[in-house]
Amino acid sequence: MLKKVDLEGATFVEGFPGIGLVGPMSISYMIDKLAMEYVGFIDGSNFPPLISIHKGEPMPPVRLYYAKESKIITIFAEFAMPLDLVYEIVQTVYGFVIKNKIKKIYSIGGLPVNQGTGAQKAVTGVFGVASKKALAVAMQKAGLKPISEGVSTGVSALLLTKSKVDEIDNINLMVAVQPGIVDPAYAESAIVCLNKLMSLDIDVSELDKEAKQVEAKISEIINKHKESHETYKNAVNDSGPSMYA
Amino acid sequence: MLKKVDLEGATFVEGFPGIGLVGPMSISYMIDKLAMEYVGFIDGSNFPPLISIHKGEPMPPVRLYYAKESKIITIFAEFAMPLDLVYEIVQTVYGFVIKNKIKKIYSIGGLPVNQGTGAQKAVTGVFGVASKKALAVAMQKAGLKPISEGVSTGVSALLLTKSKVDEIDNINLMVAVQPGIVDPAYAESAIVCLNKLMSLDIDVSELDKEAKQVEAKISEIINKHKESHETYKNAVNDSGPSMYA
Amino acid sequence: MLKKVDLEGATFVEGFPGIGLVGPMSISYMIDKLAMEYVGFIDGSNFPPLISIHKGEPMPPVRLYYAKESKIITIFAEFAMPLDLVYEIVQTVYGFVIKNKIKKIYSIGGLPVNQGTGAQKAVTGVFGVASKKALAVAMQKAGLKPISEGVSTGVSALLLTKSKVDEIDNINLMVAVQPGIVDPAYAESAIVCLNKLMSLDIDVSELDKEAKQVEAKISEIINKHKESHETYKNAVNDSGPSMYA
Amino acid sequence: MLKKVDLEGATFVEGFPGIGLVGPMSISYMIDKLAMEYVGFIDGSNFPPLISIHKGEPMPPVRLYYAKESKIITIFAEFAMPLDLVYEIVQTVYGFVIKNKIKKIYSIGGLPVNQGTGAQKAVTGVFGVASKKALAVAMQKAGLKPISEGVSTGVSALLLTKSKVDEIDNINLMVAVQPGIVDPAYAESAIVCLNKLMSLDIDVSELDKEAKQVEAKISEIINKHKESHETYKNAVNDSGPSMYA
Amino acid sequence: MLKKVDLEGATFVEGFPGIGLVGPMSISYMIDKLAMEYVGFIDGSNFPPLISIHKGEPMPPVRLYYAKESKIITIFAEFAMPLDLVYEIVQTVYGFVIKNKIKKIYSIGGLPVNQGTGAQKAVTGVFGVASKKALAVAMQKAGLKPISEGVSTGVSALLLTKSKVDEIDNINLMVAVQPGIVDPAYAESAIVCLNKLMSLDIDVSELDKEAKQVEAKISEIINKHKESHETYKNAVNDSGPSMYA
Repeated sequence: MLKKVDLEGATFVEGFPGIGLVGPMSISYMIDKLAMEYVGFIDGSNFPPLISIHKGEPMPPVRLYYAKESKIITIFAEFAMPLDLVYEIVQTVYGFVIKNKIKKIYSIGGLPVNQGTGAQKAVTGVFGVASKKALAVAMQKAGLKPISEGVSTGVSALLLTKSKVDEIDNINLMVAVQPGIVDPAYAESAIVCLNKLMSLDIDVSELDKEAKQVEAKISEIINKHKESHETYKNAVNDSGPSMYA
Repeated sequence: MLKKVDLEGATFVEGFPGIGLVGPMSISYMIDKLAMEYVGFIDGSNFPPLISIHKGEPMPPVRLYYAKESKIITIFAEFAMPLDLVYEIVQTVYGFVIKNKIKKIYSIGGLPVNQGTGAQKAVTGVFGVASKKALAVAMQKAGLKPISEGVSTGVSALLLTKSKVDEIDNINLMVAVQPGIVDPAYAESAIVCLNKLMSLDIDVSELDKEAKQVEAKISEIINKHKESHETYKNAVNDSGPSMYA
Repeated sequence: MLKKVDLEGATFVEGFPGIGLVGPMSISYMIDKLAMEYVGFIDGSNFPPLISIHKGEPMPPVRLYYAKESKIITIFAEFAMPLDLVYEIVQTVYGFVIKNKIKKIYSIGGLPVNQGTGAQKAVTGVFGVASKKALAVAMQKAGLKPISEGVSTGVSALLLTKSKVDEIDNINLMVAVQPGIVDPAYAESAIVCLNKLMSLDIDVSELDKEAKQVEAKISEIINKHKESHETYKNAVNDSGPSMYA
Repeated sequence: MLKKVDLEGATFVEGFPGIGLVGPMSISYMIDKLAMEYVGFIDGSNFPPLISIHKGEPMPPVRLYYAKESKIITIFAEFAMPLDLVYEIVQTVYGFVIKNKIKKIYSIGGLPVNQGTGAQKAVTGVFGVASKKALAVAMQKAGLKPISEGVSTGVSALLLTKSKVDEIDNINLMVAVQPGIVDPAYAESAIVCLNKLMSLDIDVSELDKEAKQVEAKISEIINKHKESHETYKNAVNDSGPSMYA
Repeated sequence: MLKKVDLEGATFVEGFPGIGLVGPMSISYMIDKLAMEYVGFIDGSNFPPLISIHKGEPMPPVRLYYAKESKIITIFAEFAMPLDLVYEIVQTVYGFVIKNKIKKIYSIGGLPVNQGTGAQKAVTGVFGVASKKALAVAMQKAGLKPISEGVSTGVSALLLTKSKVDEIDNINLMVAVQPGIVDPAYAESAIVCLNKLMSLDIDVSELDKEAKQVEAKISEIINKHKESHETYKNAVNDSGPSMYA
């Protein structure tokens, strides 16, 4: 935490990179539209050695942003998260939630659905699962379709379990996505629900442009990470057309 | 443990997912028919990051259920258990048994048998092995065929060894299953024996429907788990028909 | 140790599964013929999760047996020992030897030899190497052929090094075996030597039957162990002819 | 640290081997031209077991050199750095910076760019990113092109993040390099910028010769390292034309 | 250390198995010709579980020998050293050197050179690198060719770095060897240099015979080690022509 902010009673919004990149697209857009302030970052010795450069400034890849007025704290991760970091991140994030007396969590992710074929239409919309039954009305009003039976994975899933035990309000928003597709419409669906859940009025008309940048950035990070593994080998070993060959 | 229950002298029934899914099918059905109450869960940092959603509620994948009247505590695992978690789970479960002064354990699993060929009939029925010789009569009355020489593996096997040392009553019920087949008749055989061993009267007529759900759920979990490994790669790297391509 | 026995000055006989299964065949037969008593077992968190069932009773796979009259303690392992357990087992076994003031160790194993071809006869017999020069006469009387130069591996080899440092009598009996062959004659050769070394009179006429059982049991354990790795995958993932497919 | 030098307020220049070998070529040349003194080395238990021999003297592969007059401390690594050493090296190097009250860091690396094709010219020049906005003027004067959006990896990237938090002046110099090419012109570009940034006057006319030596040396180290993995196998196992065959 | 010997001011000679087996051949021969006494051994929990049998006696694979008259302590390793043991061995060996106030180290190894082709003659002779410049004259007198620029790896290389820091006399003797060849002439070259460096008079006329034994022994150890990995599998699993099949 670079800046001290009072988060008691604040709302936490998270969405680590996953299927359809719904989380990062939505959160990046929300940060922009609410003019949220960069207030800190998360680091870990098992994180890949990467930094992002934004507007000429070096930034850690997992960052916290805060909107004072609406009391929303969010986490933006430009980061290809390996599965074995899930527990470490959950520990860190949930510890942060508890320590700061945050009382509400919204998680944004994707729910893989099959492509509609022929007469059968593809499943669409935003599904929801909550840590408390009392949140059912709010979910319905926000247009979330309840999931009756199913399975959920990753950071959001584990935060939900912990929230349930500690009686923290937590709703997982799962946007129906088709595997292999990254579409700003996914983020639009999520933002529309967030608007209702948090009484916000985020305009979604510029999502297309923003989403494109997020996708490009995360693709670059993943490629950079791969590259840094291979860089040395390429540079020296198979140095091919060396100046001295 | 979410709810404090007095388990002194209670009976513990376990059956982690294994060949034929006999354990989960039997236990899920027993929970339903005895209207057992959800009283707690087991967690571990090496467990895959998954939650189940039941009737709209998020649930941890390894849960404890309790039937007050018959004093039965059981564990239901919607969980594709990797072999390297066996010892950790055995430690946790057996510690729970000892701490709560539980005096009887019934384990439910499958015993792989070859398919009958030609004149030779396939082996069927439920086999048993106990932690004490004194349990032989009870086993016989319940219709269990004693195993004279053999080998047993997994959580049930290790609980049996520990029970023998500590003189806890423990019977391993091993239903003869044909590798690659998941059949509700396996769970039916196990429930029939449990009825006799614990003087219960669980009606097995609806097992077919319940078993189907269990199989579907565990298949989904396994697929989800695989998916979460591959999700990111698919979403971004090989993002194929991206909106921006 | 399940039963307290005074082992001061006792003789320890070990023979973990290795080439030709000479150790387990010999020791199992000795336990039977000397009517040795089951007095304890060895456990370890890295051992594969397996139990043996003998005469209807569950047993740990690595067990100690004791013959009071001849003061012999032996270890029988129904256990496919991975190489990375060697040090852990040596630590445990040797610690047991020292703590109990055991003064003599006989190890039984196989020495791989090439098959005789044409005029050249195959090497046969039992070879020996001892922790002390003073044991040479006893070795010769027992019919052991001394090894002048060579290499030895595994639990027996490391016990021998430790015995030499601590001046414990230790003889490694290495029966010449042809790789890929399991023959009760190997165990017979070992028992004949043990008879002479320990002034016993074990009748070797029934070794053939016993050895067959030991081989079958250990094969079963190895297969079970493999199976338990694959079981779940087969049961659920590739569940092929499921009842509900 | 072999020699005690007062580094308070000194400038630290680093450039671990990476794409294009820009760092090692530049730093080796700077050490030579500024007649910098060998003052210490960095060691780690995970480093490959290698030493360099320079002018007949054995040297550790990661060494510190100091120029008293211009108060520059630099690190030269003849070392094929595996990715999993990045954090360990960053910890060590940054700890050294803090402990010695060093106030400025310049990092030298390569930025992979695509080869120009047809009408499109290849990107060239030196790009920069800094830990503080106040360094923008200095960067511009030195001819560095600012990076607005992007990603950076490795030791330099992590040092930059840490410098930003602790308000240490840090500029990453990233020379545009074509993957697979090692060209002394890369180092020349870097040195020209360093001259301006640190008011030095290093003559770049002999860079070609020096760079050739650096490339040859690092190639040798990488090959040696591979060799030491394979050496024994080749020497004994597949010993082919042995004197005794 | 089995025997207490005063090593203050003694000379340490080491040569772990590496390319051309120069070290083990030279050291084994020196032990024999100087009638050095077996005084101790080195053990480690990561060492492969092997023992050597010499003249009927079991011996650990890494042993210390001492020549009282010439005050030489040497280490003989019948051991296929995996690369990941290098640091552990260096720590142990160098700790031994420091603790015993040993003041001189000679390391013997091979330097891979290309085969001479056509008019170009193959590189031959013994190369040297020392921890101090003051040793240059002694090296020259002993016929060692100085290495001006190069790279060195393994136990000898790391001992050299440490010796340089602590100002211990250390000379690495590197005999030019052709990869894939094991030739007693390599050891002869090394011994001739050692004779001059330590004012010894070891007769090299019997090196051929001795070297043959060393090569055979180490080949056997490597094969045994491989075998012990495969032994069980072969014995039981693929037991092919079992007596009971």
